[in-house]
Amino acid sequence: MEMNIVKKKIMWGDLDSLGIVFYPRYYEWMDSSGHLFFESIGLNLGNLWKEKHIQFGLVETYCRYLRPGKYHQELEIKTHIEELSRKTVSLKHELRRADDKTLMVEGREKRICMDVSDPENFQAIEIPQDIYDILKRTNKSRM
Amino acid sequence: MEMNIVKKKIMWGDLDSLGIVFYPRYYEWMDSSGHLFFESIGLNLGNLWKEKHIQFGLVETYCRYLRPGKYHQELEIKTHIEELSRKTVSLKHELRRADDKTLMVEGREKRICMDVSDPENFQAIEIPQDIYDILKRTNKSRM
Amino acid sequence: MEMNIVKKKIMWGDLDSLGIVFYPRYYEWMDSSGHLFFESIGLNLGNLWKEKHIQFGLVETYCRYLRPGKYHQELEIKTHIEELSRKTVSLKHELRRADDKTLMVEGREKRICMDVSDPENFQAIEIPQDIYDILKRTNKSRM
Amino acid sequence: MEMNIVKKKIMWGDLDSLGIVFYPRYYEWMDSSGHLFFESIGLNLGNLWKEKHIQFGLVETYCRYLRPGKYHQELEIKTHIEELSRKTVSLKHELRRADDKTLMVEGREKRICMDVSDPENFQAIEIPQDIYDILKRTNKSRM
Repeated sequence: MEMNIVKKKIMWGDLDSLGIVFYPRYYEWMDSSGHLFFESIGLNLGNLWKEKHIQFGLVETYCRYLRPGKYHQELEIKTHIEELSRKTVSLKHELRRADDKTLMVEGREKRICMDVSDPENFQAIEIPQDIYDILKRTNKSRM
Repeated sequence: MEMNIVKKKIMWGDLDSLGIVFYPRYYEWMDSSGHLFFESIGLNLGNLWKEKHIQFGLVETYCRYLRPGKYHQELEIKTHIEELSRKTVSLKHELRRADDKTLMVEGREKRICMDVSDPENFQAIEIPQDIYDILKRTNKSRM
Repeated sequence: MEMNIVKKKIMWGDLDSLGIVFYPRYYEWMDSSGHLFFESIGLNLGNLWKEKHIQFGLVETYCRYLRPGKYHQELEIKTHIEELSRKTVSLKHELRRADDKTLMVEGREKRICMDVSDPENFQAIEIPQDIYDILKRTNKSRM
Repeated sequence: MEMNIVKKKIMWGDLDSLGIVFYPRYYEWMDSSGHLFFESIGLNLGNLWKEKHIQFGLVETYCRYLRPGKYHQELEIKTHIEELSRKTVSLKHELRRADDKTLMVEGREKRICMDVSDPENFQAIEIPQDIYDILKRTNKSRM
């Protein structure tokens, strides 16, 4: 599987006083979509953390807002790998209206592989080979 | 006044399972700091909205994460104008530890001036002259 | 329809440092489930607000936590009317694990009908007869 | 010290489409105020967790909403112990406008002492004597 799609209905609590989505919510949904993307390719980040003490931490995030999201609109969030290196993986997220596929928001999360065994001192590490292979394969299968 | 500083103590509810700040929170704080920055230069966005039907909506946001924020750490968020055009204003936010001034996170918000009189159809407009002058002056006084 | 069921997967950003759901999230989900419940019986609160300047504001909320929610668990949130009076309606929400139906959390929201035409001065009012009839019918059909 | 007071300015991101505080935010602030209350009496919950594997988990929470909070209003949140038993402690939170002391919201959090050494199986325990003594003293000193 090369791409994962998540549905999200915009709720009352996601809106600001203008009646449009308060933008940090988009990052919450992209983070969720990232986790679901990893799970869809067989990498459950919860297990990875508990069993291998590995987590993919954030280096950079970015968002561009094209149209305002509104009450009870249904969104589709498509996530795929945009870039892969030995230590980092960048996810691209596209948020579209479910009905007419209008692009509402697009964003990027650059994540770095970390050894989190010592909670006081996370270390950036190379992505372990087995995980790297899965990500590599996922990335290729898109093209 | 050319720059505004906001203090923020990292709370339990800001943390994720790793015990570090869940990154969308940084955007919530930058948004708050943006509003407080505008207020500090005499532009209360709440009043601007109600009295003049103007709001500064988001075009793009960006964040870079240098160090993880932890429980009950005190942060200082410094906000200033990075770029100003006839329709847009970009704010730069620096989040540092209050004690030793370590840079933790830096981010940017690009906002566009919008006429929001019609809730169904926001229009990008030129920043009204009186507001533009205030922003211009604020921007200059930094240099 | 007398009861509405919403599915919610617990995400990374919902968890605290103990790896369990940070409790205000449950209220966000109950609020969402309330809105979806109203929509399921033909009362879209977004439209009610825009077309009739009516909203159901909160008077009291309550939650009881029985079991901690964890990473990527699937929940089912069942919502029904617990009590109905001329001005108020109380919703009961039950949050269960989707797999084995274990009760995780239960909560209540007591909402009052408000005329919100004047944003500076919301007024508690009797629930309009047509809306009251829908709520009454919904409530009865459960028994 | 028998009571702790926290200041909180209501921000844009705390508001819903009606321009009033989205109610789960109040619970976030009460949770924060609870942690700051514990810290004010010498019990840092972060340290308690890391050093003694103890945490005060939620059993029940409750809120009553008297007046809607609005953009850039300043609130004062007063927290004190309402009830103390061998295993549980209940905090009472009062949220007032900072300017005229109008009561806006009042809430309660009932927390139970838990041994969290095993992340898969939290155990309710009696509050350790030294912590109980601090809570007892704090509670008395109010009267």
